[in-house]
Amino acid sequence: MHQKTRRKGLGKLLALTVIGATSVGASAQSMNDVQKVAKDRGLSTADLLAAAKTYTPSGVKDDYIMFASGGHAGQVFAVGLPSMRILRSIAVFTPESWQGWGFGVGNEVIAEGFPKGKANLWGDTHHPALSETGGDYDGQFLFINDKINARVAVIDLHDWETKQIVKNPLTVSDHGGTFVTPDTDYVIEGGQYAVPWGYEYAPISEYKEKYKGSVTLWKFDRKRGRIDKDKSFAIELPPYWQDLSDAGKLASDGYIFMNSLNTEMATGGIEDKNPPFEAGASMNATDFLHIIDWHKAEKLYQAGKVEMIEGFPVISLKTALAEGILHVTPEPRSPHGVDVAPKGDFIVVSGKLDPHVTIYSMAKIKQAIANKTYSGKDEFGVPILDFDSVLEAQVEVGLGPLHTQFGPDGYAYTSLFLDSAVARWTLGGSYGPLSPEPDWTLVQKTPVQYNVGHIAVAEGDTVSPDGHYLVSLNKWSVDRFFPTGPLLPQNLQLLDISSNGTEMPVIYDMPMGVGEPHYAQIIKADKLDPWTTYPGVGWDPHVQNLEPMAPKKGMERVVRKDDGTVEIYMTAIRSHFNPEHITVKQGDHVIWRITNTERAVDATHGFAVPVYNITASLEPGETVKIEFDADTAGTFPFYCSEFCSALHLEMMGYLMVEPAD
Amino acid sequence: MHQKTRRKGLGKLLALTVIGATSVGASAQSMNDVQKVAKDRGLSTADLLAAAKTYTPSGVKDDYIMFASGGHAGQVFAVGLPSMRILRSIAVFTPESWQGWGFGVGNEVIAEGFPKGKANLWGDTHHPALSETGGDYDGQFLFINDKINARVAVIDLHDWETKQIVKNPLTVSDHGGTFVTPDTDYVIEGGQYAVPWGYEYAPISEYKEKYKGSVTLWKFDRKRGRIDKDKSFAIELPPYWQDLSDAGKLASDGYIFMNSLNTEMATGGIEDKNPPFEAGASMNATDFLHIIDWHKAEKLYQAGKVEMIEGFPVISLKTALAEGILHVTPEPRSPHGVDVAPKGDFIVVSGKLDPHVTIYSMAKIKQAIANKTYSGKDEFGVPILDFDSVLEAQVEVGLGPLHTQFGPDGYAYTSLFLDSAVARWTLGGSYGPLSPEPDWTLVQKTPVQYNVGHIAVAEGDTVSPDGHYLVSLNKWSVDRFFPTGPLLPQNLQLLDISSNGTEMPVIYDMPMGVGEPHYAQIIKADKLDPWTTYPGVGWDPHVQNLEPMAPKKGMERVVRKDDGTVEIYMTAIRSHFNPEHITVKQGDHVIWRITNTERAVDATHGFAVPVYNITASLEPGETVKIEFDADTAGTFPFYCSEFCSALHLEMMGYLMVEPAD
Repeated sequence: MHQKTRRKGLGKLLALTVIGATSVGASAQSMNDVQKVAKDRGLSTADLLAAAKTYTPSGVKDDYIMFASGGHAGQVFAVGLPSMRILRSIAVFTPESWQGWGFGVGNEVIAEGFPKGKANLWGDTHHPALSETGGDYDGQFLFINDKINARVAVIDLHDWETKQIVKNPLTVSDHGGTFVTPDTDYVIEGGQYAVPWGYEYAPISEYKEKYKGSVTLWKFDRKRGRIDKDKSFAIELPPYWQDLSDAGKLASDGYIFMNSLNTEMATGGIEDKNPPFEAGASMNATDFLHIIDWHKAEKLYQAGKVEMIEGFPVISLKTALAEGILHVTPEPRSPHGVDVAPKGDFIVVSGKLDPHVTIYSMAKIKQAIANKTYSGKDEFGVPILDFDSVLEAQVEVGLGPLHTQFGPDGYAYTSLFLDSAVARWTLGGSYGPLSPEPDWTLVQKTPVQYNVGHIAVAEGDTVSPDGHYLVSLNKWSVDRFFPTGPLLPQNLQLLDISSNGTEMPVIYDMPMGVGEPHYAQIIKADKLDPWTTYPGVGWDPHVQNLEPMAPKKGMERVVRKDDGTVEIYMTAIRSHFNPEHITVKQGDHVIWRITNTERAVDATHGFAVPVYNITASLEPGETVKIEFDADTAGTFPFYCSEFCSALHLEMMGYLMVEPAD
Repeated sequence: MHQKTRRKGLGKLLALTVIGATSVGASAQSMNDVQKVAKDRGLSTADLLAAAKTYTPSGVKDDYIMFASGGHAGQVFAVGLPSMRILRSIAVFTPESWQGWGFGVGNEVIAEGFPKGKANLWGDTHHPALSETGGDYDGQFLFINDKINARVAVIDLHDWETKQIVKNPLTVSDHGGTFVTPDTDYVIEGGQYAVPWGYEYAPISEYKEKYKGSVTLWKFDRKRGRIDKDKSFAIELPPYWQDLSDAGKLASDGYIFMNSLNTEMATGGIEDKNPPFEAGASMNATDFLHIIDWHKAEKLYQAGKVEMIEGFPVISLKTALAEGILHVTPEPRSPHGVDVAPKGDFIVVSGKLDPHVTIYSMAKIKQAIANKTYSGKDEFGVPILDFDSVLEAQVEVGLGPLHTQFGPDGYAYTSLFLDSAVARWTLGGSYGPLSPEPDWTLVQKTPVQYNVGHIAVAEGDTVSPDGHYLVSLNKWSVDRFFPTGPLLPQNLQLLDISSNGTEMPVIYDMPMGVGEPHYAQIIKADKLDPWTTYPGVGWDPHVQNLEPMAPKKGMERVVRKDDGTVEIYMTAIRSHFNPEHITVKQGDHVIWRITNTERAVDATHGFAVPVYNITASLEPGETVKIEFDADTAGTFPFYCSEFCSALHLEMMGYLMVEPAD
C-alpha cells in the first residue's frame, strides 16, 4: 500500500529529529528542569526528596515485598516497597476470575474450607504470616486467616498460589492468627467472638456455660507444604474474645501471647436496653493477656490428654489449668497488638483505651509463673500473674495505641488509632544503647491520615528487623484522594524511618481501593525465590509436581467413554488451542484437561468458556483439569482470555453441545 | 499507671528534639539532599524529572481519572493520573466481597445478566465507555461490556456502582463495545465470534448458513440511568468476527464504524489437519471495515422493519442491504482499533499485520456511498466501497499497529504491538497546521515494555482531546517488576506527551496485578462530581432514592410474620448494630434490612455473617436489604467488617438459629 504524504516544506522537515529514538536521556536534562517541573507542580523540596526516595524507574525492582491481607476482599496483596505499587493479588478465599481461582481451578481448595459443607465464597483475611526459620522470614510460605468463617490458608511462595484452606471445626470466628512459631512448626489461629463448640445453637443467655474461647495450633508439614490436620490440636480458653497473638521467640520461645477483649463477658442486647457490646465490653480497666506454654501443650496433646470435640483434639481448660500451661495477666483494656521484641525478652501490649504501651518482661513472667506470684484467679480458675511482678515499663505514646513493630536500632513503633499518628519510642534493656535517646522514651509522633490500624516495619516482627521503611495501614482516607463515590479507599502511607530521632516523615500515600488490608508483613525481596515459569511442562500447581495425565503436544485428543464422560486433552500455545472443535452431547460429563506448553516467561494463556462459568489462567508449563456437566445445549466459543500475541483474538475454538433429544 | 523510665544521662536527654513535631519541613531540606538521595538510589536526572512529574504529595489529588477495564477480573479499575495509583475497583460482573457485591447486595443485578438463567459469576470486561454529551465526556455514567457472555453493564458515576447488567439475547460473544453515540442515545455492543442466533446448537459445518454476526444498539435512558431494553435493537451482520467499533461524531455523526477479522470465515479444526484459526483467519490481505448508518437504522426499527429473534428486534441483513444502511470497505488484515478523529472527519484503522495506519475520509465515504463507487459485493451482497475512493492517507508507523488515540495538537498516537512501542504521527487536513511536522508523518516511536495493546490519551477519543498523558496498556511485563510467581502483572506505562516532536518519554511503570485491563478512558477529574455520602439516610443505591422501608434510628425491630418470614430492621452507627441479638428458627426466611445512619464522609460500615455467605459494604446513608433462608442451625457472630472506630471489634451481634426440631 502506498503512503500519502503532504509536506509543509523543507524547513519543517529538517526540524524533525531522528525517528525511533528512545525516551529522554539523562544528559539532555539538568537539575534546573527538575526544579522547574517541581515548582510547576507545587512540590516542595521535601516532596521532591520523597519522590526521589519512592520513585522506581522502569525495570528497576523493588527492594521489599509487603504481603498485606485484603480484609473482606478475601485476598492477599503483594506490594513493592519503596514504590508502593500493587504487584499482584493472590486469590485466597474469594473466587477471582483473573487468576481463574474458583471458576474451574482451585474449586476443591475453596470447597475444603466450606463451613459444615455450606458454600462460602468470600473471606475476611486479617493477618498474613510469612514462614520463619529461627524466628526470621525464610520466604517459603505465607499463611493467612479468615475471620468470617475461622479458616486458615496456605500459600506457596514458589508460585504465589493458595494450596490449602483448613476450616476450624470448633469455631466460626477467629482473629488472633495467623502467627507462626519460630520454625513454623505450628501456625497459630486464635479465636475471637466466643461461640458454642462447633458453632452449634445456644441462646446467648447461656453464654458463660456454653460459649467457648480457643486457640488452635495447626501443625505445618513444610515438606508437603500443607497443614497436617491430623497432627493439629486446640486449647480451650475462657469465653473472652481472644484477639491478636504472637509467638515467643529466643528468650520467650515456647510461649504464645494472646490478647483478649470482653473479659467482662458482656452479651450485648441494646434492643432490650442492655449496654451494647461497645459499652459492656469496655467496662473493666484491664483485660487479660493470655500466656500459653505451647511446648508443654504439645506434649499434653502427644500424651493424649485431650478431648475430642467436633472430631478435633482439644486440651480442655480444666486440663490446661491442671497442667499449668495457661496463665493470664492484666493488660490495658481493649488491646489489639501484642508484639514480641526481637530478642524475645519483652512483650509489648497496646490497649486502645490507655495512652501507654505496656512492656512485660519474659524473665519476670517466667519467674512469676515459677513462684506462682498470682494476684488471684479469674472466675474460670485461670491464675492471674501479678501485674507489677511481670511489668518492665510503660511508655506514654498517645491516644489509641494499637500495634507495635520494631526496628534494628533500639526503636519500637506503635500505631496510634485515635491520634492518627505513628509513635517512635525507645526500648530499654540490652536494646537501649542502640538509639541515641534514653530508654523507654517517646521520641517522635508522625501524624498519618487517618485512623491507623496496624503498621508494618520491614521484617519488623522478626528476630532481625530491617528498618528503613514503615507502612501505616490507615483505615480512613477521607480527603486524601480524589473521591471515588461514597466508598473511599484506605490509605497506606510509607514512612521513611532510616534516620534517627524525630526525622520520620511520611513520604508516600498509597490508596488501597481493592480491599481493606488489616495487617501486613514486609520481607526483603532477595529472600524470595519465586518460579517465573513452572519447572516442567504439564505441571500441576496443586500438587507442585508433573501430572502424568497432563495433555502433551502431539497427543491431543477427545476421548468419549461409555459412561457419558468425555475427556478432552488439549494444549495451548501461541496462538491456538488444540483441538479447536469440541462436540459433546447434552448431559455428558466433561473432564477438560489443558496444558500450556509455553516455556517463555510471562507466556500465560487464559481459558474462558461462556455460559458454563469457567475461566482459568494457565501459566507457562501449567496443566489444569476442569470438570462440568454439559447441561445446556448450544454453541459456545471458548477463547484465550490473556492477550498473548498479535493473533490472540484468533486463539479460540467452539464447544458445541448437541441437544439431548 | 506509672511510667518507668531509665535515663542515660542529661546529655542524651538534652539531645532529644521536640516530641510530636510533624514530618520534615521543606525548609530543612536542600536540593543537595535531593541530589544525594537520587545518586544513592542510582537515579538519573531524567528519572528525577519523571519522579517530579508523577509524584503526588499526601492529600493532593490527581488531575485525571482513568477508568480501565479489568479484563477477565470482570471489574473496572479507577486509576489516578499522573500518580498511577489504583484509587478503586468497581465490581461489575464478578462478585467482590470488599464491596459486598454479589454477597447479598447486587445479587439481582448480577442475576439479570445470567445467560439463559444459568449462574455466571465472572466477566471479561473489555471496553469502558464514558457517557458523552456532544461527543465529549460528561462524567455521568460508565458502560462496560463483557466479552465472555455478551453483556453490557451500566455504572452510575454518582456512587461508582453498577446499576444494571443486560444480557444480549442473540449472541454469547461480544467485543466491539461498549461505545456510545455522541449524546449517549445508544450504547453500542458489537459481536465477536459468530454463533447461531441465541447461541443455539449448530455444527460448525453449517457455519456460513447458521452462524451470525451482529451489532446491538442499546437505548440509554439517561434520566433513569438505565438501558431501555424495550427500545433497543440489533442489526444482523455477516458471520465475520466483528471487532472494535467506534461511533461517528460531528462530520461522521450517525455512523458506526466496526472492524472485523476472519472475513475468510475460517472454521478452524487443527485436530483434523485443518488450518488453525490463527492461520485460516489471516489468509486474506484485507478484512472489512463495516460502515453502518445508525440514524437510518433507528428509523427502520421505529418503522417496524425488524424481525423478532430470541424476542429481540433485529434488522435482518437483507433489510439492511435493501435499505442501504450497511457498507464495507477493505481494511488491513487483523485490525483491532478503528478510531474516529476529533472532528469526525477521519477514521483511522490499525491492522496488526500491516505496518501502516490507514486513514479513511468521511467525506469520501459519503460520496462513495452516494455514488455507489463499489469495487464489488461480498458473498452476502454487502456493497464494498472502493478502497482508493475512500482512502485519505496511509502512514507507516511500524509493526503491529493496534489502536489510535488523538491529542489536541494535530498528533495521533498508535500502539505498536509487535514493535512494543507507541508511535506519534501527524494528522493532515485541518489538523495539520497544529503540529510543527508535515502532515501524515511518523514523528516518534517510544519503546514500551512490552507488547502494548490499547493506549489511552486523556480524553483522547473525544471531540476535544486533552493530551498531557498517554497510558500504554502493555500486556507483558516480563522483567520489569519483582517476579510474582509464574503469573506476572501487566505493565501500564505513563508517557509524558506534553512536549512536541520526539520528546515523549515513559515516566512511570505501573504494575497491574489484579486484572488485565484491555482498554481505558481518561477523564479530567473535575468533570466528575461523585457523592461522598449518600444524599440522605436510608438511601437505596439500586434505585438512587430514599427507600421508604429503610430502618430508621429509634424504629429498629424484628418482626416475625405468620408465614415464617422474619423481617429485621437494623441500624448501624459507630460502634454498634441495633438490634444485637437476632434469634430465628431454622427454616425461617429472613429479610434483613440495615441502614448506615452515619453522615460523616468515609464512615462506612461492613456487615458480615458467617456460614450464610453474606457481606455488605454500607456507605454513609446507605440502606440494604438482604434475604436468605435460615437453613442451618447454630450461633453465628455477625460483625462490622470495615475498621470503623477504636471499638470496631465490639461492633457485632449474634444471629442465633434455633434448630427446627
